[in-house]
Amino acid sequence: MDCLYVVSLVMRSEGFESYRCDRNMSLGINLVSMSKVLKTMGKDDSLTIRVNDDSDSIIISMESQNQDKFADYELRLMDFGIAHVGIPDTDYSCTINMPSSEFSRICRDMSIIGDSVLVCTTKEGVKFSAKGDLGQGCIRLVQTANVEKEEEAVIIKMKEAVALTFYVEYLSMFCKAAQLSPQVSVNLSKDTPLMCEFKIAEMGHVRFYLAPKSEGDKS
Amino acid sequence: MDCLYVVSLVMRSEGFESYRCDRNMSLGINLVSMSKVLKTMGKDDSLTIRVNDDSDSIIISMESQNQDKFADYELRLMDFGIAHVGIPDTDYSCTINMPSSEFSRICRDMSIIGDSVLVCTTKEGVKFSAKGDLGQGCIRLVQTANVEKEEEAVIIKMKEAVALTFYVEYLSMFCKAAQLSPQVSVNLSKDTPLMCEFKIAEMGHVRFYLAPKSEGDKS
Amino acid sequence: MDCLYVVSLVMRSEGFESYRCDRNMSLGINLVSMSKVLKTMGKDDSLTIRVNDDSDSIIISMESQNQDKFADYELRLMDFGIAHVGIPDTDYSCTINMPSSEFSRICRDMSIIGDSVLVCTTKEGVKFSAKGDLGQGCIRLVQTANVEKEEEAVIIKMKEAVALTFYVEYLSMFCKAAQLSPQVSVNLSKDTPLMCEFKIAEMGHVRFYLAPKSEGDKS
Repeated sequence: MDCLYVVSLVMRSEGFESYRCDRNMSLGINLVSMSKVLKTMGKDDSLTIRVNDDSDSIIISMESQNQDKFADYELRLMDFGIAHVGIPDTDYSCTINMPSSEFSRICRDMSIIGDSVLVCTTKEGVKFSAKGDLGQGCIRLVQTANVEKEEEAVIIKMKEAVALTFYVEYLSMFCKAAQLSPQVSVNLSKDTPLMCEFKIAEMGHVRFYLAPKSEGDKS
Repeated sequence: MDCLYVVSLVMRSEGFESYRCDRNMSLGINLVSMSKVLKTMGKDDSLTIRVNDDSDSIIISMESQNQDKFADYELRLMDFGIAHVGIPDTDYSCTINMPSSEFSRICRDMSIIGDSVLVCTTKEGVKFSAKGDLGQGCIRLVQTANVEKEEEAVIIKMKEAVALTFYVEYLSMFCKAAQLSPQVSVNLSKDTPLMCEFKIAEMGHVRFYLAPKSEGDKS
Repeated sequence: MDCLYVVSLVMRSEGFESYRCDRNMSLGINLVSMSKVLKTMGKDDSLTIRVNDDSDSIIISMESQNQDKFADYELRLMDFGIAHVGIPDTDYSCTINMPSSEFSRICRDMSIIGDSVLVCTTKEGVKFSAKGDLGQGCIRLVQTANVEKEEEAVIIKMKEAVALTFYVEYLSMFCKAAQLSPQVSVNLSKDTPLMCEFKIAEMGHVRFYLAPKSEGDKS
């Protein structure tokens, strides 16, 4: 991983009502345009996404439930000049499962204090801390003994304690995916990018990778 | 019509609780000021608007229902130096009645793709299309066969098919009036300004006129 | 009072669940930081604020109800170089009690018309008026004879009529406290700063003082 952060989104074919792919393809999609177009969908519309062979555009078609409105968008594909970003499989030292809304709040709260957040795990729980011009702050989450609702649990699986520093701005950005899933899994190992995963129902997941700040980095 | 767009608002005297006008008058009102002042009204206040003979200001008085609060505003009238904008009566080739929220959405969706929208009518329905840097998009509305709610109907009355291009920015601006009425009527003829009308209850209407883009215009 | 406006906030020790103060202290707190940190509190969290002897920071600790989340913030104190702003006790000529939402609205409405507002009290009621480029406006509030809800009453206690002009921008700023209390008390005397008070439940109050505009000030 030669970059600061990487996003990986997996949506398995079983998750679609109908799915056909004759050969593997890499498509360079302008996410800003794609997202604008997808937002035009009505809540009961059905959606078809299509790329024809040798085409340089992606076709997005929407149809209203009672078939009285049809929208077709054709967006230009982009040539990124990259085939694949390699992300090595990692056996993480520490995995924290927690409510995604809680992770989101902690990132927001730490960003008030400083640009980067130090994440420390111990057997008792996980500690997030930050320093800055105003002063300093820290938040400790205790592993939940037993919770009524599974999605409110904080569970820490730890082989080895870790203490890693990350730019909180990127973590906050990742947390925009918090609405996809009530729980997030944050995976940490020494000198290894953090991986945080939000499940997408039974269909797949989105994973964010963020390189830790090295000691020499200016905060 | 020597301008790009014109707005005409008609509120008939029967619509007012009390209405008195001794002689016809043309008043130049600063709409921004007027709108700011009208927004100060409480929801159960009564409103009186008055212009005295030979006055250069309009007086707006509000009174709370239980008569414990009185507000009076006196706004300067403006001299536009114009008596009347002539809008010729037109027998349009094509009239589209549709839900105003739908028209509003289509304008918003087309504005994602391009600066201008091509409106084409056929016997089957109406097609809106746009092109731009991202790619292209089009939305087709089918005439509704039978709808339960009259206000959800899409009805196209057509003497002759039309294909006209308009700046979508102005159409979007007109759609701010969509909350006045559940239905909008969009009227089109070749080489003639579009007229779109929102009814104001039993009291009157607001009409927006927009000149089509000529072929030579840069999109 | 050598400044344009002063804010004074009193929260009595009885209002706290636990309160300990060994000796009087003046603390210079950065309100922007303090407010950011306090906003991170969950709605059922408990809050402890602490300053140690000879410390140059204030410690804010929050604890979730079920004791699974702990947050500690340490904010630097500031040295204002001032011990106390003297505010002389005043026996005001005129006290207006009114719904704080109404006062807030009047300030907002007058700010549409001009930069400053003239407040005139008479036996019948109170009149707010403003002038500006658009024209002029005035709002009269009548003393309420009898109201069902005490918090909706407008009550004017007057020893002497007053007519004072204030910058409406500051009054609007004070009105941000309107959510603390359903009623505001506005106190006026000739050539004396206005004092407007919002009660904080049974615990204390916040008072805002604003010097009147002198005749010579540019509006």
